[in-house]
Amino acid sequence: MNFASDTSAPAHHKVLEAVLAANQGYAPSYGADPWTAKACTALCDLFETELAVTFVNSGTAANALALSILCPPDGATICHENAHINRDERGAPEFYTHGGKLLLLPGAHDKISATNLEPLLGAINRSFVHETPADVLSLSQLGEAGAAYDVTEIVCLCDLAHAAGLHTHMDGARLANALVSTKATPADMTWRAGIDVLSFGFTKNGAMGAEAVILFGKMAKRLDTLEARRKRGGHMPPKQRFVAAQVLAMLQDGLWLELATHANTQASALADGFSHAGAKLQHPVQGNEVFVCLRGGQAAALRKAGAQFYDWPDGSARFVTNWNTQKSDIHAAIAALG
Amino acid sequence: MNFASDTSAPAHHKVLEAVLAANQGYAPSYGADPWTAKACTALCDLFETELAVTFVNSGTAANALALSILCPPDGATICHENAHINRDERGAPEFYTHGGKLLLLPGAHDKISATNLEPLLGAINRSFVHETPADVLSLSQLGEAGAAYDVTEIVCLCDLAHAAGLHTHMDGARLANALVSTKATPADMTWRAGIDVLSFGFTKNGAMGAEAVILFGKMAKRLDTLEARRKRGGHMPPKQRFVAAQVLAMLQDGLWLELATHANTQASALADGFSHAGAKLQHPVQGNEVFVCLRGGQAAALRKAGAQFYDWPDGSARFVTNWNTQKSDIHAAIAALG
Amino acid sequence: MNFASDTSAPAHHKVLEAVLAANQGYAPSYGADPWTAKACTALCDLFETELAVTFVNSGTAANALALSILCPPDGATICHENAHINRDERGAPEFYTHGGKLLLLPGAHDKISATNLEPLLGAINRSFVHETPADVLSLSQLGEAGAAYDVTEIVCLCDLAHAAGLHTHMDGARLANALVSTKATPADMTWRAGIDVLSFGFTKNGAMGAEAVILFGKMAKRLDTLEARRKRGGHMPPKQRFVAAQVLAMLQDGLWLELATHANTQASALADGFSHAGAKLQHPVQGNEVFVCLRGGQAAALRKAGAQFYDWPDGSARFVTNWNTQKSDIHAAIAALG
Amino acid sequence: MNFASDTSAPAHHKVLEAVLAANQGYAPSYGADPWTAKACTALCDLFETELAVTFVNSGTAANALALSILCPPDGATICHENAHINRDERGAPEFYTHGGKLLLLPGAHDKISATNLEPLLGAINRSFVHETPADVLSLSQLGEAGAAYDVTEIVCLCDLAHAAGLHTHMDGARLANALVSTKATPADMTWRAGIDVLSFGFTKNGAMGAEAVILFGKMAKRLDTLEARRKRGGHMPPKQRFVAAQVLAMLQDGLWLELATHANTQASALADGFSHAGAKLQHPVQGNEVFVCLRGGQAAALRKAGAQFYDWPDGSARFVTNWNTQKSDIHAAIAALG
Repeated sequence: MNFASDTSAPAHHKVLEAVLAANQGYAPSYGADPWTAKACTALCDLFETELAVTFVNSGTAANALALSILCPPDGATICHENAHINRDERGAPEFYTHGGKLLLLPGAHDKISATNLEPLLGAINRSFVHETPADVLSLSQLGEAGAAYDVTEIVCLCDLAHAAGLHTHMDGARLANALVSTKATPADMTWRAGIDVLSFGFTKNGAMGAEAVILFGKMAKRLDTLEARRKRGGHMPPKQRFVAAQVLAMLQDGLWLELATHANTQASALADGFSHAGAKLQHPVQGNEVFVCLRGGQAAALRKAGAQFYDWPDGSARFVTNWNTQKSDIHAAIAALG
Repeated sequence: MNFASDTSAPAHHKVLEAVLAANQGYAPSYGADPWTAKACTALCDLFETELAVTFVNSGTAANALALSILCPPDGATICHENAHINRDERGAPEFYTHGGKLLLLPGAHDKISATNLEPLLGAINRSFVHETPADVLSLSQLGEAGAAYDVTEIVCLCDLAHAAGLHTHMDGARLANALVSTKATPADMTWRAGIDVLSFGFTKNGAMGAEAVILFGKMAKRLDTLEARRKRGGHMPPKQRFVAAQVLAMLQDGLWLELATHANTQASALADGFSHAGAKLQHPVQGNEVFVCLRGGQAAALRKAGAQFYDWPDGSARFVTNWNTQKSDIHAAIAALG
Repeated sequence: MNFASDTSAPAHHKVLEAVLAANQGYAPSYGADPWTAKACTALCDLFETELAVTFVNSGTAANALALSILCPPDGATICHENAHINRDERGAPEFYTHGGKLLLLPGAHDKISATNLEPLLGAINRSFVHETPADVLSLSQLGEAGAAYDVTEIVCLCDLAHAAGLHTHMDGARLANALVSTKATPADMTWRAGIDVLSFGFTKNGAMGAEAVILFGKMAKRLDTLEARRKRGGHMPPKQRFVAAQVLAMLQDGLWLELATHANTQASALADGFSHAGAKLQHPVQGNEVFVCLRGGQAAALRKAGAQFYDWPDGSARFVTNWNTQKSDIHAAIAALG
Repeated sequence: MNFASDTSAPAHHKVLEAVLAANQGYAPSYGADPWTAKACTALCDLFETELAVTFVNSGTAANALALSILCPPDGATICHENAHINRDERGAPEFYTHGGKLLLLPGAHDKISATNLEPLLGAINRSFVHETPADVLSLSQLGEAGAAYDVTEIVCLCDLAHAAGLHTHMDGARLANALVSTKATPADMTWRAGIDVLSFGFTKNGAMGAEAVILFGKMAKRLDTLEARRKRGGHMPPKQRFVAAQVLAMLQDGLWLELATHANTQASALADGFSHAGAKLQHPVQGNEVFVCLRGGQAAALRKAGAQFYDWPDGSARFVTNWNTQKSDIHAAIAALG
C-alpha cells in the first residue's frame, strides 16, 4: 500500500523494453540520435502543431530550464504559493533565472484564480525601475492539491497574462492525469489555451526518468538558447537516446494516457471509499491524488495496516496513486480506515 | 568503425540487466533507495576509505556540482586551457559557482606541469582584493589529449595546491582508462594522492548515464551543501535507483576495469597499427584515445572506408575506442590508412 | 512642501564641508585612506564595541552586500512582505545572494511579529533538501510604514531567530529616526539586541551618499568575504575618502541624531496637525514618516497648495520629513488639509 | 611624488564647487533630477549624436553593467589577458553577466591586435552548443600598459568583431588621456569607429567618483534593461544629482581634456627625463602612464627620494601622473633616477 508518491513506483515494462531496444550499436551523442528525432515528431503529432522540444531527466530541470528562457534575472514569475517550483525545488527557478523572483498568489485548492491574478497584473508598472515586474505566469497541472485546471480556466488566465505582457508556462508534471480527468486534448489544454512553454512530465506517469520541455509557436525560436542553458546546466546527457526512447515508449499507442487513466481510476476509488467511510476530502480529486481529513486513530490504523502516505501541511493526509497501484491496495486502505 | 566518441557507444548489457532488475516494486525516491545505499558502500570498498557520494546523470553535472562546493563566486579554479570544464561544458562551472573564474594553464599533452603551476600559485595574494585568487586545482583524467597523470605527478601537483591553500578536484570522466593504463589503484590515484573531490564517470566506460561525485576525507562534511546544490540544479532524479543500479553493475566483479582494459587495448592496437604504417602519434596513448597526424589523403581514405573520427584543433585526428570496439574495426582502420 | 522622500532633500552643509576638507592632496585609494580608518574608529566608539565595517554609496548596495555574506544561494531570508529589500530593490538581494529566496511575512504596520515568525521558524526542516530553509532574519528600521521596532521587540525576534539557527540583519536606512523615537542607544538597538549585521544609512538622514555595512561580534570574521563581494559588486570607490568623510561629518558631535531629531519633530507636528484636522493616521508615527488617510478633496487640496507626497498602496498618503523640513512647510500642509 | 595611481589624486576644485552648487533645495531622486538631464544633453553634444546614458560611482560598476547588457550568461567577452576587467575587478564581469566567460588574448603593450583576434573570431561555431561563443569584444582605452588604440585600430577591430556577430565595448577609464594623445574626437574614437557601448571614466581624470555608461545607436534601446540592472546592482544613488553634477563640471569648457592634457604632458616629461637618464621605457607613453625598466639601485633611490610607484608584473616600474602632478614632482623623480 504505497501511496507516498508516484515517484516511488517502478517504471512501466514497456519503457524498459524500449530502452533495451535502443541499446543497439552506435548512435550520435547529445541528442543527434534518431530516437530523439522520432520523439520530436511524435510530440508534434500529439500536440497537432509544429513545436520545438528538448529532453531532460527531472521535472525540476524541466521547469527551471523553461523559466530560464522566459524570466530575465530582473524579472519575476507568478505562481501559486504552494507551487512545486516555489516549495519543492530548492530554489532551482531562482538559480536558472539568475535570481528572478517568484511572486506568490494564494488560491483555493492550490489553484490560481482570475480574481487573485488580476490585481497583481494590474499593479505592474514596467516603468518603475525599483519594483520587479512579472514576466511569466506559471500554472501547475495538476496543482499541489491534486486539482486540475480545466481548459476554460487556462484560457482565461493565459489571456489575462498575455494582455499584461507576460509569457505563460505550464508545469505539466502530471499533465496526463489532468488531461484524463478533464477529457481535454493535449493541444486544447496547452498551446490552444495560450500556454507558451510546457514542462511535460513522464516520470511520475511511468517512465524511469524523462521529461520534455516544449516550446510552442513563436517560443520555438528560443530553442537555441534553451539548448545552451541545458548544456550549461549539465542536462544534455551524452547518451540521450535512452531518454528519448522512454518518451517514445510512453507515447506509443497512448500508453501514457492508459497509465494515467489507471492511476486516476484508483484515486477516484480510494476517494469514494474514504467518503463512504465518512472521511472528508480536503480537495477535489481530479487526478491521481487524494487529500483526506483523517480523524482520531485513522492515520495510525492506516499506517499499521501498511499504508504509506504523507501528512500534508494543510492538515490533511495525501495519498498518491500511480500506474502500478493495485485494486487490492485500494481495498486494503479503505478497509483500514474503518 | 565508430571512433567518434565513447559516448556514441551503447551501454553494456549487464548495466541494462541491472536496471531491469531494479525495476521491482516500490522504492523511496530521491536517493533514499537501497541501490543508492549499496552503491555508496561499494564505492567505500573500492576506494578503501570512508567517503560521501552523490550520483548524477552527466559528467558536466558532476564536474560543475563538485566545483560548486569548492570554488566561491569570488574565487577561481585552475585548470588546463584545453580542459573539458573550460572548452566543452558551455560555462557550467561558471554557472554552478555563480561566476567563479577558470584560470588557464598551458601544458604539453594537455597536462598541467608543476613547472607551469608553481608561478601561478606563487603569485596568489589573498589580501589583494582586486584580483581573483585560486581556490581549486582541477585535473582531468584522462586529459583532453588522451594522456594520463601518473600517481607521482598527481601527488606533486596536489601537494603544491594544498600548500598554497587550494582544494583539489579530479575530473575522472575516463578515470578507469587512466587506472588501467598506469596500473594504479583507485585509492592511490585519488585521495591518497591528495584529491579532495572526484567526478567519477561511468557513462563513457559503459553505463547508460551515471556519474558519481565523491567527497574524500574532510570534504565529506560538505555533502549537505552538495545535495542542496544538486537538488537546486535539477540533478536529483526522482527514481534514483536507476542511476545507482548502473553504478553497482559497473562495479560488480570489476566490470568497469574490464571494459576500460578492453578499450585501452584496442586503442593501443590502433596506435601500433598507425605507427607501423608510418603515421606519427601526436600524444602518448595512455587510455582509449589515439591522436594521429594524418597525411595527404589518409583522412579521406579512412572516412571512405567508413571510419568516424574527429579532426582535432591541434591538427591531428582523434580516434576514441570503447568497451564495444571490435578488433575488426581496428584492423579495418589500419588497413584503410594504407 | 516636499514630503516626497528624504532622498529628495539636499545634503547637510557640514557633510559637504567635510568632503571639501578631505580633498587635500593624495590619499591611498580603495579604502586605505585615513578618513576610512577614522570612520571605523568612530563607529566602534558609537556602538561601544569592536566591529568590522565597510562603506558604500547606496542603501540597496548595503543591504544586498550584507545579505550576500549571510544567506547562501540555496538559503533564504525572512523579511516583511513590504520590506524595502523585497519591494523596492529590483531583486538586489537575489542578485547578490545568487538566487537566495526571500520568505515573506505579513504583519501590522509592516513589522514582523513573534506570532507570525514562530510558525515559520518552527516549520524549518534542514534535512529536507527539497525545501529552502531560512538562514537570515532581516528587520527594517524604520519599517516601510514608518513604525519602529523597540529594543524589546528586536531582542525577542533575534532570540527566536538565533534559536532556530538564523543570523540577523537590520536594514537601518532610517536607524537614526528609530533611535531618536525609541530613545535607545545604537548598541542597545543592534548588537546587544542580537543584530549580527547592520546596514547603517546616512544618506536619507543628511549625507550625499554614504552607507555603512557593520559586522558585529563573530561576524567581523566575514569582512574579507564582504570586501571581495564589495569589489566584485563595483562598490569599492577608488576615492573612498569622500564617502568616509561624509560618515565622519555625520557622526561628529552627534550631527546625525540632531538631524533625525529635527525630522522626527517635524513629522510629529505634521501628524498632530493632521489629527487635529480630523484626518486618521494609518500607522503610528515613530520616525520621520506620516501615513494619513485623506478624504474627499484633501489630497487635491494639498497638491494644489504645492505639497509633494506619495499615494501609498495601502490607501493612505505618505509624507516624509527630513533634516531640512521647515516649520513653514508643516504649517502650510496642515493649513491646506483644511 | 605620488605616482602610485591617478585614483590617489584629489578631485579638481571645480568638481567640488559644482557639487556644492548642486546642493540647493530639493531634487527628484534616483536620476530624475535636472543635473542628470543636463549631463545627458552635454554628452550628446560632446559625442555629436543621440545616445542613452546612465551614471555610476565606479569604473568597475560601469564596465560590469555595460557587459551585463551585451554578454548573456552562456556567452563570452573577448578582452586582453591583462585587461582591467580580467585582472583587477574581482570577477565583476562574471558576476554581472551571471557567469559569462572572458576569452583572453595576448598582445604587445596590452593591446589586442587584429592578428590575434581574427583566429579567435574565425573559430566561433555558434551551432556547437558545447563551446561558449564570443558575444562581445572589449577594448581598454588606455590599455593596462598605458598604450592607446588609435582610431584606425579601433575601426579595424570593431569591423572584425561586428562581422563575426559580436558587439563592442570600450573600457574608457582613461579615455580622455587616449583622446589627447591620439588627437581624436570623442565621436571618432567611439561610435564612429564602431564602439557600441562605452564606459566613460571621469574619476581618474579629476572627479570624486563619477562614470558614465553610454549606449550608442541601436544600443540605446537597451537602456531600460541597463537601468534595471543598475538598480539591481545597487548603483542607482538616491541623490544622483551629486554624480551628474561632477560630470557636468568635468565637461564644462573642456575641463576634462584640459586635465588629461596636463597629466599626459607630465607623463611625457617624465618619460623623456627617464630616457635621457638612460632608462629604457617598457611601453610607448600614450597617456598618463610611464612604464620604465629600472636598473640596480634606481628603484630604491627613487623611493628614498619619496617617489611612490608600483612594481609591475612585467618587471618594469609603473608611474602614473594625474591632473594634479606638479612639474617639481617630475623633476625630483628624474633627479632621483640619477
